[in-house]
Amino acid sequence: MKDETVLLGHGSGGTMMKRIIDDVFAASYGSEELAQGNDAAVLTAPAPGERLSFSTDTFVVTPHFFPGGDIGRLAVCGTVNDVATSGAEVKYLSVGMVLEEGFPMEELQRVCASIKTAAEEAGVHVVTGDTKVVNRGHGDGVYINTAGIGFIPEGRNLSGANCQVGDVILISGTLGDHGITVMSQREDLSFSTDLKSDAAPLNHLIADVLAAAPDARCFRDPTRGGLASTLNELAEQSGVDMVVRENDVPVKPAVLGACEMLGYDVFQVANEGKMVCVVPPEQAEAALAAMRGNVYGADAAIIGQVEASKPERGNKVFLETGFGSRRILDMLVGEQLPRIC
Amino acid sequence: MKDETVLLGHGSGGTMMKRIIDDVFAASYGSEELAQGNDAAVLTAPAPGERLSFSTDTFVVTPHFFPGGDIGRLAVCGTVNDVATSGAEVKYLSVGMVLEEGFPMEELQRVCASIKTAAEEAGVHVVTGDTKVVNRGHGDGVYINTAGIGFIPEGRNLSGANCQVGDVILISGTLGDHGITVMSQREDLSFSTDLKSDAAPLNHLIADVLAAAPDARCFRDPTRGGLASTLNELAEQSGVDMVVRENDVPVKPAVLGACEMLGYDVFQVANEGKMVCVVPPEQAEAALAAMRGNVYGADAAIIGQVEASKPERGNKVFLETGFGSRRILDMLVGEQLPRIC
Repeated sequence: MKDETVLLGHGSGGTMMKRIIDDVFAASYGSEELAQGNDAAVLTAPAPGERLSFSTDTFVVTPHFFPGGDIGRLAVCGTVNDVATSGAEVKYLSVGMVLEEGFPMEELQRVCASIKTAAEEAGVHVVTGDTKVVNRGHGDGVYINTAGIGFIPEGRNLSGANCQVGDVILISGTLGDHGITVMSQREDLSFSTDLKSDAAPLNHLIADVLAAAPDARCFRDPTRGGLASTLNELAEQSGVDMVVRENDVPVKPAVLGACEMLGYDVFQVANEGKMVCVVPPEQAEAALAAMRGNVYGADAAIIGQVEASKPERGNKVFLETGFGSRRILDMLVGEQLPRIC
Repeated sequence: MKDETVLLGHGSGGTMMKRIIDDVFAASYGSEELAQGNDAAVLTAPAPGERLSFSTDTFVVTPHFFPGGDIGRLAVCGTVNDVATSGAEVKYLSVGMVLEEGFPMEELQRVCASIKTAAEEAGVHVVTGDTKVVNRGHGDGVYINTAGIGFIPEGRNLSGANCQVGDVILISGTLGDHGITVMSQREDLSFSTDLKSDAAPLNHLIADVLAAAPDARCFRDPTRGGLASTLNELAEQSGVDMVVRENDVPVKPAVLGACEMLGYDVFQVANEGKMVCVVPPEQAEAALAAMRGNVYGADAAIIGQVEASKPERGNKVFLETGFGSRRILDMLVGEQLPRIC
């Protein structure tokens, strides 16, 4: 018997649920731990001296499929990247599915195949999962939560609170590709047909940078809220100002054109395969070379530096224009591109 | 400024999201790790020789509030119990929220307060989280995913595959309280006004049983699919039959009455604060006493035993009636009580 769409019974804890788990989830991204069928996966612990890294993210993007990726690839990459920002080796993933009654099984299969591919690329194992089915009209086809565990080597202490005056800020590639791609798909806009999402696992890129620039202060991926929100978070955590040189920030012309047409600020558009890194100045060139040597870092650039804050106005991020003037780069306030990650 | 309802901007990665995190999530169930504001929580690893236990669950129950609990309490207890079935000390939780635009902030506050209370009772820390807001009509107020990490002591190897012929089956209390309570609330049925959900963290109960019955084979909580599905899973994993004596299974008269009126099989109704345990016969009385000594095990009972399977008919679960006859207790096939956990 073959189910064409997701039915309420697939989430009921009985034989139908066993079937969707065996035929869809385990068949695509199964692991030894998942196959054991216990309620919790039993996993090898870190070596002595290592610590755990733990993060979670839920993915609610529509459309589910877009140039450069889909919700399954995003669900793996998003959590892998969050765990990797701690400098951890990313090891294990959970996958929790919220399926809407009537979701086509063929689309679910494609999403799951994509989870498998992305997990293999990142080198992580899906070891535990959960399946819920909600009534028609109470979801959006599929929502996916992933949680990830990594192991942090002894002596590695990355944090957004580590940035110091004089440090250098890098970005691993062009801004805005993911957000503009998804938005253009959703709105059926034709200006960006040559664009695709940058969704990618960046744990290997981070490892490359750490090998070349061992005193890197922190990594953070500028997803929702874009580069502007990420830098404002880091500035506040570290109690510093940050200055970004607009002309040094890589942006594809098509993305810039779309932003101008729509009135979006590219610094607030979401990315899913880019990494911000702050390093001490003497390791900046090495970090840049390491990024550029990675398949996902070809367009990496040094884009700015950390400066001292003026106590009377708090921690600010500035954008330095081509004319040498500075404007404040604010955190996104409300909603720019809804639900794109 | 105070937000009365959840708005799309609360999930956008900018200042509104920062506000809901600070004012609602961190203010209720915040921890030191959550306060650090990094993308991944950095956590102490297990001691040498220990292993990790990892599980996840998403909660989509409606109504969100019901006698004996709410979706927040469920979200903590469900994952704590799954992790605890491995014999682990449960340590860390992630909380991923999918909020529907327009969800009342006051209800979210109550859910979060409940998460705090349940986490404190279980002794776990919420160390990382995520917030997404979906458009009106694409959710059901609030969906909550939790993932949990525990540490398993050296030498402890619990698994559903461990059951042996002659082993004894225990249940920690009455069947069906959660499922019937939620269903009666949803359908506005009055027959069960004295009932309440059993939602509870059972990690301490499991620890008590393991101290008294160190050779316990496995634990599993009979949630979706009920006791029937749980025992069928264990029978298949271990390659055995299981026999349950109907008269020994504790069920509240009001639950039994509701099941009879509605045509439900109480063995397939969900529980959220009950634990099945299989132990070698010589440790059964000690395990029972340990359960009964725990606040959530007062009605615990020995309900059956593990028997050898007949190869020609696979692994079966039988219900032995008061008259000594046996009927097959099947796994739930489709849907009995939708989305109650």
